[in-house]
Amino acid sequence: MMKKKDINIGLIGYSMMGKAHSNAYRAAPFYFDLDVNPVLNTIVGRDPEKIKKSAAKMGWKNHSTDWQDLIDDPSIDVIDISSPNNTHKEIAIRAAEAGKHVFCEKPLSLTLQESKEMLDAVNKHNVLHMVCHNYRFAPAVQYAKKLIAEGRLGKIYHFRATFLQDWLMNPEAPLTWRLQKDISGSGTLGDLGIHIIDLARFLIGEFSEVTGMMDTFIKQRPLGTMTDTLQYETTSNEYGEVTVDDAAAFLARFENGAMGTFEVSRFSAGNRAGNRFEINGEFGSIRWDMENMNNLEVYFTNDEEGLQGFRTINCTEHVHPFAGNYWPAAHILGYEHTFVNIIKTFLDGVAKGESPEPNFKDGVMNQAIVEAVERSSETKSWVSVNDVLQENNIEKQDLIHQL
Amino acid sequence: MMKKKDINIGLIGYSMMGKAHSNAYRAAPFYFDLDVNPVLNTIVGRDPEKIKKSAAKMGWKNHSTDWQDLIDDPSIDVIDISSPNNTHKEIAIRAAEAGKHVFCEKPLSLTLQESKEMLDAVNKHNVLHMVCHNYRFAPAVQYAKKLIAEGRLGKIYHFRATFLQDWLMNPEAPLTWRLQKDISGSGTLGDLGIHIIDLARFLIGEFSEVTGMMDTFIKQRPLGTMTDTLQYETTSNEYGEVTVDDAAAFLARFENGAMGTFEVSRFSAGNRAGNRFEINGEFGSIRWDMENMNNLEVYFTNDEEGLQGFRTINCTEHVHPFAGNYWPAAHILGYEHTFVNIIKTFLDGVAKGESPEPNFKDGVMNQAIVEAVERSSETKSWVSVNDVLQENNIEKQDLIHQL
Amino acid sequence: MMKKKDINIGLIGYSMMGKAHSNAYRAAPFYFDLDVNPVLNTIVGRDPEKIKKSAAKMGWKNHSTDWQDLIDDPSIDVIDISSPNNTHKEIAIRAAEAGKHVFCEKPLSLTLQESKEMLDAVNKHNVLHMVCHNYRFAPAVQYAKKLIAEGRLGKIYHFRATFLQDWLMNPEAPLTWRLQKDISGSGTLGDLGIHIIDLARFLIGEFSEVTGMMDTFIKQRPLGTMTDTLQYETTSNEYGEVTVDDAAAFLARFENGAMGTFEVSRFSAGNRAGNRFEINGEFGSIRWDMENMNNLEVYFTNDEEGLQGFRTINCTEHVHPFAGNYWPAAHILGYEHTFVNIIKTFLDGVAKGESPEPNFKDGVMNQAIVEAVERSSETKSWVSVNDVLQENNIEKQDLIHQL
Amino acid sequence: MMKKKDINIGLIGYSMMGKAHSNAYRAAPFYFDLDVNPVLNTIVGRDPEKIKKSAAKMGWKNHSTDWQDLIDDPSIDVIDISSPNNTHKEIAIRAAEAGKHVFCEKPLSLTLQESKEMLDAVNKHNVLHMVCHNYRFAPAVQYAKKLIAEGRLGKIYHFRATFLQDWLMNPEAPLTWRLQKDISGSGTLGDLGIHIIDLARFLIGEFSEVTGMMDTFIKQRPLGTMTDTLQYETTSNEYGEVTVDDAAAFLARFENGAMGTFEVSRFSAGNRAGNRFEINGEFGSIRWDMENMNNLEVYFTNDEEGLQGFRTINCTEHVHPFAGNYWPAAHILGYEHTFVNIIKTFLDGVAKGESPEPNFKDGVMNQAIVEAVERSSETKSWVSVNDVLQENNIEKQDLIHQL
Repeated sequence: MMKKKDINIGLIGYSMMGKAHSNAYRAAPFYFDLDVNPVLNTIVGRDPEKIKKSAAKMGWKNHSTDWQDLIDDPSIDVIDISSPNNTHKEIAIRAAEAGKHVFCEKPLSLTLQESKEMLDAVNKHNVLHMVCHNYRFAPAVQYAKKLIAEGRLGKIYHFRATFLQDWLMNPEAPLTWRLQKDISGSGTLGDLGIHIIDLARFLIGEFSEVTGMMDTFIKQRPLGTMTDTLQYETTSNEYGEVTVDDAAAFLARFENGAMGTFEVSRFSAGNRAGNRFEINGEFGSIRWDMENMNNLEVYFTNDEEGLQGFRTINCTEHVHPFAGNYWPAAHILGYEHTFVNIIKTFLDGVAKGESPEPNFKDGVMNQAIVEAVERSSETKSWVSVNDVLQENNIEKQDLIHQL
Repeated sequence: MMKKKDINIGLIGYSMMGKAHSNAYRAAPFYFDLDVNPVLNTIVGRDPEKIKKSAAKMGWKNHSTDWQDLIDDPSIDVIDISSPNNTHKEIAIRAAEAGKHVFCEKPLSLTLQESKEMLDAVNKHNVLHMVCHNYRFAPAVQYAKKLIAEGRLGKIYHFRATFLQDWLMNPEAPLTWRLQKDISGSGTLGDLGIHIIDLARFLIGEFSEVTGMMDTFIKQRPLGTMTDTLQYETTSNEYGEVTVDDAAAFLARFENGAMGTFEVSRFSAGNRAGNRFEINGEFGSIRWDMENMNNLEVYFTNDEEGLQGFRTINCTEHVHPFAGNYWPAAHILGYEHTFVNIIKTFLDGVAKGESPEPNFKDGVMNQAIVEAVERSSETKSWVSVNDVLQENNIEKQDLIHQL
Repeated sequence: MMKKKDINIGLIGYSMMGKAHSNAYRAAPFYFDLDVNPVLNTIVGRDPEKIKKSAAKMGWKNHSTDWQDLIDDPSIDVIDISSPNNTHKEIAIRAAEAGKHVFCEKPLSLTLQESKEMLDAVNKHNVLHMVCHNYRFAPAVQYAKKLIAEGRLGKIYHFRATFLQDWLMNPEAPLTWRLQKDISGSGTLGDLGIHIIDLARFLIGEFSEVTGMMDTFIKQRPLGTMTDTLQYETTSNEYGEVTVDDAAAFLARFENGAMGTFEVSRFSAGNRAGNRFEINGEFGSIRWDMENMNNLEVYFTNDEEGLQGFRTINCTEHVHPFAGNYWPAAHILGYEHTFVNIIKTFLDGVAKGESPEPNFKDGVMNQAIVEAVERSSETKSWVSVNDVLQENNIEKQDLIHQL
Repeated sequence: MMKKKDINIGLIGYSMMGKAHSNAYRAAPFYFDLDVNPVLNTIVGRDPEKIKKSAAKMGWKNHSTDWQDLIDDPSIDVIDISSPNNTHKEIAIRAAEAGKHVFCEKPLSLTLQESKEMLDAVNKHNVLHMVCHNYRFAPAVQYAKKLIAEGRLGKIYHFRATFLQDWLMNPEAPLTWRLQKDISGSGTLGDLGIHIIDLARFLIGEFSEVTGMMDTFIKQRPLGTMTDTLQYETTSNEYGEVTVDDAAAFLARFENGAMGTFEVSRFSAGNRAGNRFEINGEFGSIRWDMENMNNLEVYFTNDEEGLQGFRTINCTEHVHPFAGNYWPAAHILGYEHTFVNIIKTFLDGVAKGESPEPNFKDGVMNQAIVEAVERSSETKSWVSVNDVLQENNIEKQDLIHQL
């Protein structure tokens, strides 16, 4: 048993995403036979006390309050960007310049233009890159992709998706960074919508054009903080302006002719994590719901007459992607395993010198669609995704994965 | 026990809707204590053999092949129009002129302009009228309305609805009248979309503007016929052009500010009767699915912490609208009872001399929204419902029910 | 079109079962092409005012307060016994003696011995007979039977069923006739348990032996009345003794070797009509739930690996038994249609001169199993069904349907 | 931040349970703020190559092929027994003698008598002990317990549970150790039944008496091996005898008067991990299903009329036990987290010097009930749990947890 090559990770961010990524680096080699050995080298956060505590609890060897330390440290192989959106661009470009691979949380950045610069940087410096659209990596979603790729649904007619939450419904929920456009870039559309845009592209292909609407239901909120488990406290009597959308909806036409409907909201009472899609094709349909993420509902038009119905498949069998490395069938997986699976995939990429999908190309394309929806919402018209790309001097073929 | 007044019904149409209405006239006095006594007087259909057989089987005293006979028969009190859409206008106007009350299947007619003429006629001749949006009359939907009207959901943020079917997916399914614009007026939008438009208006209020897309996936179909249970046979080798939409989707803004998403299709594999809605309001949410039409899922934001979740309410308790007249709780009702309940409501209206909702005003408004979606689909822009009304010289206030 | 033969029905009972049967006689010829014409001739009930009103409302030509009138009326062809259990035996025997066919509500009678006498009577007088185990006639249940009969599940390993209700949980719910052993014969076991016993026999075969337990949770109740929709009022300050079981559970061994578990209760909060079964066989499984009675969940072990899961089949397709005569797929049926279907089957039997299953043979066998469970509960031991039959001088082969 | 005390773990077993426990020791300090620091010191397995590989992959410092090494190593604080059932007794007693705390997989041992010896040993040597009934530690189950303990269901009438699997249905599935009584002690009853027995005791209290049945559907199987994810290969042409049960069912009476029904099987097609229970009490009901383990369905009889229905509660809110330490609401947990939570609880016990429930007392009581069911199945009669205890010279009060 030859010793595996160590891959030293530097992680920026220690709250919800930092925790999810930390766990994934620990768990990936536990469940999978990786070709490299991820080392939890250094975690970075701005609060000295908190980052010290997080490093100890989450198993990082070192900690720092300055992400520049990672850039400067030649032993760091990978920089994982799990900090707020407005920090992504600079860190990613500096990391690429330093020759480090980049694993970046979504959305790639605040704007399409910034995202393009990030892609240019990783291309120029020839480092590996990936963007953390973790939902692709639920075994059920991977299996849906497999069925579609095999033609089991035939021509696709419809893709409909929602990502509905309700954690902002209380008017006293504070004005966190996610509600400030200068830090987050977008609201529900960039935070949640980009996930279902990515799932749509992963599962059925590229968007052609979109038309949408956006709204902010509560326009002023108290200043304050919110924990990962959505407990909050207001920190002053002051109120600030919500500068992003609380909800968005859009229609889409895909390049393959399929029709799409999309809706995201943080005001859908009772929907905590309502990330759901249904795909209708010529030979069948598929449904998925993140709140029940192990299950896939599948219908085939050619099932025997009388016995046609959606099958509820618990995608935890050894034949389902990733699932065979965990537990016996129906001993279900959870949210965190989507991160374990994407990190395993990323580390496989590092071992092979490839940037697995979804990578920065996808990050750019997803951002282009977000911006197309935003523009359509302002102009109240349909907007071509290609037009948005061209205005940003992005060649579409540069974003297409070569098979 | 004084003898109740007989109300003589003349019904035009004997296939699926004729059957549903016939059953409803028979069943309404069985389950409810009505103030009038509906008499199944005469049924009309073009095929002499079939109408004779239908009359015998469904319990009609008389039958005819000419609807004019109903107009001419002074004993007929109510004309029920369950024939194809292109016949509605003429029959309704002639019925009104003859002083007969009119119960008309949806959509009211082929176009908004025609529908307006029908409303003008019933108004002018002061006859009672109603349009058969039967889904309003599922006990669960009525109960949803009650909860919303009581303010249990507070301000409404979102209304999302689909009506998904799959009976046209086979390219060999024939070119029935529903696929020919000159007979049906519209495709999925006018047939299915109008139902969920009506439900939206019933439940949360009027539409302000819409933007939509429509598509026809299979453009040529063999000539042939299809039974009520969707068995078909092609009648020749000829093919004809499908002149209506196979699917449509649209976004809406409601007058109360709520956002709406709507989708209808006859190409959603595995969805036989996927008439579903979800409403998200300030204090809770409601979900309904026609395939499980007895149930209502209800969520309240002010439920005790830790015990928050959608409740699955089987709306068959004696306190649920209409339900108390049938069976003990959870001894479920079916599709046909939506018709029994609407006919009971119509007959109550006849007894009181009122036109219960939804009546021709609703038929006109629903048609206006259908036409707004059609226009938006052509112009690829948002279309104001008011603009559509005004262009048809319809005063919006004439369509509003006085409370 | 030759005129069909009239079959004059005399119905005893006008409350819940009387209503369900009345509706079924009206609806069967509406939905099905019957070979005979059922005539709602006479309905019988003890309260003169109520029976008069019921006759008018439910469409009966005549009414009476004395069931003897039916016996004496030579025009009556069929006597339908929907009165309390303690009246079944005498009526059935007198009807048979008078040469009238008998359709009898379940349980057949208060005791196995009484039931045997009823079977002897219909045999002796050569009249047709059937017992109203309506749940067999849900299309989904009929379809389950078909799948099992075709061997689609292979050898059966397990049958588990419950029938759970909650309408007796309130200690103030009154002491209706169903809680008095001299009128009802049994409590949950004879009322609900006999339904799932019948379903088990219908679906997988005969019982070999049983062991059970029974309990009465609330032993004294106020005198009073309860409506069909379970509204009640106490009629005095007096309390009476509950002389039947509130709940029962038993294990069973079937003749084919399958293991069975059964449970019935009127104290299962939230279960209004929890009549549910699951069957596990060598090649698959089937689940059904009356509260969702249109659906059948079916699993096949030989489904493709990765795509194995329970299918939710909405048994409303034209290929599902009975369903093709109603509405398009997924336009669901309700509780009342189980009665329409059984009455249609009974009338088919009348037309052919046969006693369709389940008939009095089944009524006797079901009662034997109820008594075996009762005895096992007293003796705290396993009881052989054959032993119970033999002690009652019943030859088992006399109860077996000849194929 | 004072350094926490290291607790050195020695784990015996490296297959499914060894993996689940290893992960739990790693993850517990990641998610929770523990008072001690678990050190993955040494893992033991018989196969030298496999244990070396497992140690590396799962993060153990040392490995050994002889569990005696753990006994002899003074640095080991805790011995975790995850090896086959026939090894439990000796290891546990030797560990206790060596003053080491014991965390033992279920069932505690092959027989009640052995289990008693184990309890005597941990008592005598005053070491801490716990038995791994992990399902108690699903947040939804913990929350169910909390609701019941608070009296939210009132008096309990019914407990019904199943644990249904299907991995033995193929007659070619090999004769693994779980099918050999000398190694496993019992079949489905001891493997699966003991889990639902433990859940019943945890949730509603002690058993009084039971009566059951057991069966072995396939009596000869090929020799061979099976992986954790249930892939198998036969290793010879030989067949051996299955000496345990494939399925078992039993009725129970609880000390508080509640009625219980229990069923376990490895022949329930389509049920992969059908560990489910429903509890019906005076004021409500609770349902849980391990395949959907984050959800709890809860019904309250005092919910507002018209709004009564089972609520589907996703027990991932910060107020649900253990859940607040993981992810935002509805970002679900999986099977492995039941182990993380029980190990966290065990380590809390180690820090405090207490043996949390379920400990060896529960292991003994659970085993007594298993043996009572086995005996009842042989004698075809009801068996008192107290009688079984007394015959084994076990004082019931010695098994009761002091509050």
